This record gives sequence, C-alpha cells and structure tokens, in this order.
Amino acid sequence: MSHISLPDDMPGIRALVAYRTDTGKILYELAEALLRSESTLKRAERELIAAYVSWLNECAFCASSHAAASRHLFNERSDIVDAVLKDYRTAPISAKLKALLKIAGKVQQNGRLVTEEDVADAHAHGATDREIHDAVLIAASFSMFNRYVDGLATWAPEDPDVYTEMGRRMAEQGYARRFSQVVSEHQVEHGPR
Amino acid sequence: MSHISLPDDMPGIRALVAYRTDTGKILYELAEALLRSESTLKRAERELIAAYVSWLNECAFCASSHAAASRHLFNERSDIVDAVLKDYRTAPISAKLKALLKIAGKVQQNGRLVTEEDVADAHAHGATDREIHDAVLIAASFSMFNRYVDGLATWAPEDPDVYTEMGRRMAEQGYARRFSQVVSEHQVEHGPR
Repeated sequence: MSHISLPDDMPGIRALVAYRTDTGKILYELAEALLRSESTLKRAERELIAAYVSWLNECAFCASSHAAASRHLFNERSDIVDAVLKDYRTAPISAKLKALLKIAGKVQQNGRLVTEEDVADAHAHGATDREIHDAVLIAASFSMFNRYVDGLATWAPEDPDVYTEMGRRMAEQGYARRFSQVVSEHQVEHGPR
Repeated sequence: MSHISLPDDMPGIRALVAYRTDTGKILYELAEALLRSESTLKRAERELIAAYVSWLNECAFCASSHAAASRHLFNERSDIVDAVLKDYRTAPISAKLKALLKIAGKVQQNGRLVTEEDVADAHAHGATDREIHDAVLIAASFSMFNRYVDGLATWAPEDPDVYTEMGRRMAEQGYARRFSQVVSEHQVEHGPR
C-alpha cells in the first residue's frame, strides 16, 4: 500500500503525477527531453541507461518499464537489454556504450565517484561531451525517479505482460503525451482538480 | 576541472544549465515548483531539506548554496540550519520537521528504506500527505541535482562569502528568474546558441 493516499488504480510514477500535476508535468517533460529528443544516442540506448540505473536502485516499476521500452526499441535485438542487466561488460554492445554505462553506474552511487579516467575512456571510444553529459543526467534523473516512486511506496504491477505493453506505449507515444493521458484519466475518475 | 567543456566562469548547476538549456530550463522549473511555490512548508524549511540531502551526498556546491538560502530565509533564526546539518535530532525545530528530515535522509539512500512507521510518525506529528510527498520529492530531486553537479565535476567556489551572496539571490529572486539570468549572461559571452 502506498505511504500516502494516491489514485489507487494507477501504478508507479503515474499515480504521483496525478497526485501533484504541476511537478508531474515537469518530470514528464524531463523524461521526454532526456530519453526522446534529438540525440546521437539512440532512444533504445537511452532507455537502456534508464533501465540499468533503475535496476541498480532495485526500483521494480522503473526498471521493468524502461527495460520493456528499450526492448521494444531494440526490436529484433531486444536480447541486448537482458544481457546488459546481467553484466554490461560482457553484453553485445559497443565499447562506447559500455563506457557510458560505467559512468552511469558510478553516478547511481554518487557523482563524485566518476573519475577523469572514466571520462577519458568514454572519449577514447568515441563518446562526445554531449553524450557523456546526457548519460550523467539520465543516471542522475533516474536516481530521482526511482527514489520518488519507491519513497512513497507506489504500486508496482507484478505481471511481466503489463510492462511489455507499458514499454511499447512509452516507446511509441512518448512522455509528453502520456502526461496528458494521466491527467485526462484522472479527471474522468475524480473530476477536475 | 570539469569532465566536459563547460562555460568556465560559471559554478555548479549554472554551468550545466548554460551547456544544455532545454533540460536546464526544466530543472530550474522543478526547483521553483518544489522550493518556492505555495505550500504549508515554509520556503526556509524546504531549502533546509535540500541542503540536508545535499550535505549527506557531500555535494559541496548544492549543500553550501541551499544552506545559505535557508539561512537567509530563517533570518534571525539562521542558527537552525547549522544545528540541523550537525544533528537534526537535537536541532531547535518541530517534531514534524524532524520526522520529514528522517524520511528525506532515507530517500537520500534509497526510497525503499522509508517505512510505514516513518510515515505514521510524520502523520502523528502533524505532517499532511502533501508535506510527506513534497519532502520525498525534494529529497529525490536533490539526489539528482547533486549527482548531476558532481558527476560532471563542475566548479564549486571555496569562499563562504560567495555562497552567502548566492543564497541571498536564490532566496530573493527564485529559480525561474535565475534561469533567465544564466541564459542571458551566456549569450553575452558566447553569442546566441
């Protein structure tokens, strides 16, 4: 049961966004900018960084949903996602993505753990400053989302099929549109706030 | 030296906001909504939660600047801030604020550590659901800001007077206005982006 009274048919972040819509709108805009806007990092790769950090934080809702979004975007190479969650160092991904995941994993613990060597290694494998910046901010922002979702003990569905469908919608529709859906669903059920 | 090429005369989050303005604008909007919008928690108390979490994460820039903003807002009771950073349990603050700081400190580690007992204790001392929600989201968001600022090794001034003045401006002007300042300063120096 959640720690505060939330719309009880909504899971994870959706319940929180419906509970406080002004911050909810900002948080979904942040996810949209980081995971979906124009970038030299593929959307599948950015969702994977989000899933990896969420998995390290043991946030079941965020890890399952973003892993599903990443699998959907990787399409026939969806096996990459589970290989990374098992051990990114041996996963069938580029050395650049491995270097960015290493940095993301350190940020998940504490930003101060990222060393000049970690950054030089990412540069040496072709990562740009902007890609390093974005990997750090994705890891930092999921350190927030995970704490928000778990700190208020939101509901996380257990059925894997629920996440497969959720991930497909996240990947296809994006977060700005999903915010509008949360607000309109909530208004139908509870009246305008 | 910062891990990536940043506007080198700007400290902490300001350099990052100038580096990527679309996410920077969103992040300052989040700070404005959480720390300054209408709330039953005083601005001084919300800045204090931000400073406390940043101090736990050992993020010198965020801890020093938000502690300074909180001191400015507490005005003649500015001693409260240092008492909380030393040990909130013995600080001259309400039992409600102590219960919220306890929750914030757990969120700083991992959201899953917050227990039903922690929340019941906050309720028993008069905290509303909304105040508990906001304390959790402030703690979660500073877990992001701290990682972003430190994960890219931004510059943190060492002179305490710099933070006193920074905190005064944060408290008086707010974050939305400070975003506009960062962007306009950056344009003067480097031309429109």
